[in-house]
Amino acid sequence: MYRGDSPCIEKEDEIATEYPLTIVLNGEEFATLVCTPTDLKDLAVGFLASEGVIRLPDEIISVSINEKRGFAYVETINKQPVSLEFYAKRFIGSCCGKSRQSFYFHNDVKTAKTITTRSQITVDQCFRLIELLQQQSFYFQTTGGVHNAALCSQDDIIVSRTDIGRHNTLDKIYGYWMFHRIPLKDKVIVFSGRISSEVLLKVAKIGVGMIVSKSAPTDLALDMADELGITIVGFVRGEKMNVYTHPERMIR
Amino acid sequence: MYRGDSPCIEKEDEIATEYPLTIVLNGEEFATLVCTPTDLKDLAVGFLASEGVIRLPDEIISVSINEKRGFAYVETINKQPVSLEFYAKRFIGSCCGKSRQSFYFHNDVKTAKTITTRSQITVDQCFRLIELLQQQSFYFQTTGGVHNAALCSQDDIIVSRTDIGRHNTLDKIYGYWMFHRIPLKDKVIVFSGRISSEVLLKVAKIGVGMIVSKSAPTDLALDMADELGITIVGFVRGEKMNVYTHPERMIR
Repeated sequence: MYRGDSPCIEKEDEIATEYPLTIVLNGEEFATLVCTPTDLKDLAVGFLASEGVIRLPDEIISVSINEKRGFAYVETINKQPVSLEFYAKRFIGSCCGKSRQSFYFHNDVKTAKTITTRSQITVDQCFRLIELLQQQSFYFQTTGGVHNAALCSQDDIIVSRTDIGRHNTLDKIYGYWMFHRIPLKDKVIVFSGRISSEVLLKVAKIGVGMIVSKSAPTDLALDMADELGITIVGFVRGEKMNVYTHPERMIR
Repeated sequence: MYRGDSPCIEKEDEIATEYPLTIVLNGEEFATLVCTPTDLKDLAVGFLASEGVIRLPDEIISVSINEKRGFAYVETINKQPVSLEFYAKRFIGSCCGKSRQSFYFHNDVKTAKTITTRSQITVDQCFRLIELLQQQSFYFQTTGGVHNAALCSQDDIIVSRTDIGRHNTLDKIYGYWMFHRIPLKDKVIVFSGRISSEVLLKVAKIGVGMIVSKSAPTDLALDMADELGITIVGFVRGEKMNVYTHPERMIR
C-alpha cells in the first residue's frame, strides 16, 4: 500500500525462508535450530562443535540429512548422553580464574580458544574483504534480513555462508572447517552484522584471530576479544574503520 | 583507521552493552538472558510469560532484581519445577491439529493465541507509528545494533523498549503489559527489525493483532500470522508499505 492516493497493489514478494532443523545426536533429539535451509551438514556439525559436543572431525561417524522432514542425524564415536542442564546453567565456578569471568556457560569455557597468531593484515585488505562479502551477498539485497559470514584469507573469500540466524552463519563456517581443516593462523572472519558476545565466542571456538564487520561490537564482545586475543575491526564504512582490540595485527 | 594516507586516531566510542541476567524461578536457575540492562523486571516476567510459566499477573508473588550481580528472583504461586527438556524438544504430536503444524515447541502451542479482533487502522496511522518509533530510537543512532519494539495505540506509542536482543524487546513489552493489563483489542506492535517466526510468536503470545516493521517478514512468520489471525505490515519505507497477511485490518 502507498501513502495518500497512490494505488494498493497485490503482488508476490521475495521472502526469506525459516526452516526448522532438528539435530538428532546418536538417536536422541539434541536441539532444533531455525535456519535458512542451505549447507545443513555444515550447520549440524558446526553447531555440535560450537557446543563442545564434537572436538575433532574424526569423532564423527556419519551425518545424514532428511531435508524434507527437517532432521539432521549425527552419529559420533562418543555415545555418552549430553545433559541439557549442563548447557543451560550459568557458570560461576571457583575453578575458573578471574580472567575468564566474562564467560557464562560451561561449554564456552571448555571450547573458546585463546588466539595467539602473530599474522598481520593491511587496512586495504580489510576494506577489500568487506567489499567482497557485500558483492557475494546478492541474496540479502533481494529479500532483506539475512546474515552473512565468510572465512577469508587475507586477499579473498574461502567460503561464505548465509542464514537468517546470525549464529548459524558462523556454525556453517565452523562445520565447513571441520570437514576441510584449513590452517587458520592467517585467516579472517568477515561478518555482516553486529559483533555480539555470542558471535565473538563462535569466532574463538573456530579459532580465528580476527573478525571484521560493518557493524558495531558490544562491550561484552570487546572484553572477551581482549582476553581471547582476537582483533575486532568494526564500523567498516566508506573510508573508515574502527580497530577495537588487539590492533597489533593491523598494519598500513 | 582510514584508507590511504589518512590518520589513525585513538578515541573512545559508544558501545552497546551486553548484560547477562539470570532468572531464578522459585529458587532454581531457570535461564540466563544476554540483554541490555534496562526494564529488567519487565524482561524477567515477560520472558516467563512467553515461556508459558506465568499466565496471569496474579500468579506472581514477587520479583526482585540484583542488578549488580545480574540476577532476577521471581517467586510464583505454582512451585512445580519446570522441566528443561520440555522446552527443548520439538513438538510433533497427534493431539495437535493440522492447522498448528507450524509450531515446533510445546510451550508455543500452549501459549500462542489466535487473534480475532476486528479493529482497523489506516495506512497513514501506520506510517505515523513507524516515524514515532524512529524518533524515540535515539539510542540506536549513537551505538548501532540495538532493537526497538513499541506497544502502540492507533495514534501513539504507549510504551517502547530497547534491547540488543530482538526477542528481549518483546519480552520487555510483555512484562510491562503483565503489570499494566492494557486492553489489547485495538493495539499495534511496531518493531525495528525483521519479523521472524519467533518475533511473530511473541506478538501472538502477548495477544496483539498487528505488527508493523520497516523490515521484511520470513515465510514461517507469514504462515503463522495467517493461521493466528495477525496482520503483518512490513517494508514500511518512504511512501510504501507491504501488507502481507490479514489485510482486512488495513483501511485507507
